[in-house]
Amino acid sequence: MITRVDHIGIACRDLAASIAFYERTYGFSVFHQEVNEQQGVKEAMLRINGTDDGGSTYLQLLEPLHAESPIAKFLERNGEGVHHVAFGTADVVAETEAITGTGVRALYEQPRHGTFGSSINFLHPKDCQGILTELVQSPVHE
Amino acid sequence: MITRVDHIGIACRDLAASIAFYERTYGFSVFHQEVNEQQGVKEAMLRINGTDDGGSTYLQLLEPLHAESPIAKFLERNGEGVHHVAFGTADVVAETEAITGTGVRALYEQPRHGTFGSSINFLHPKDCQGILTELVQSPVHE
Repeated sequence: MITRVDHIGIACRDLAASIAFYERTYGFSVFHQEVNEQQGVKEAMLRINGTDDGGSTYLQLLEPLHAESPIAKFLERNGEGVHHVAFGTADVVAETEAITGTGVRALYEQPRHGTFGSSINFLHPKDCQGILTELVQSPVHE
Repeated sequence: MITRVDHIGIACRDLAASIAFYERTYGFSVFHQEVNEQQGVKEAMLRINGTDDGGSTYLQLLEPLHAESPIAKFLERNGEGVHHVAFGTADVVAETEAITGTGVRALYEQPRHGTFGSSINFLHPKDCQGILTELVQSPVHE
């Protein structure tokens, strides 16, 4: 079961400049930063609100670590903007299995490491009305 | 002050088909449907979770009413996908004024009518890191 919008993933060219924009424009602040070598990104999570499943909704700003990063390829094609939408669930394995059972393809056979030590998978944008969709199981919140 | 992610606006070609996809894939359900002639859309709100400001976070599915709708133009250029991100605030006029004071352009001089009788404005995507950004003041929740 999906219980929240966990985050909106935003591709940016310069993480520090994007953080400065969100701080200056909306008063948002950085909750967490990390480098994820497996995903090829450095990232910042800006917490926007709490959710009624005990979690939170964030903006996730993503700068590519190198030219082979999926975020680098996205920026080449689209420029800066929304890269993906992530839904929170208490069980990413069961949720992925339920969803692939409806005919939607997952990108990974097993969950991978996401932000905050979460477990994540992605659903194919061609099967999701054009939207790269992430499923997130967060050990911090659930 | 912005207190929540209010919704993610998603452009779709066939509202009924998109609703069916979100119901079948994630178990989401339609909370509200309406036609907004001023915005040139028919739309469905799928409620995902409650937020700690007393509001909710939704997916907003948007089908163009006619070829001149901004959603029709978006679909021509980009296909189906995320059209905008909307932040909730208790005072859309004050929030718009504060944000335009930082150099970001708003699309309207005065708020317009949004979903559920809300008051809305949009911020120019070229000033917002590539993201068309909506500000929403909802009389239902605040």
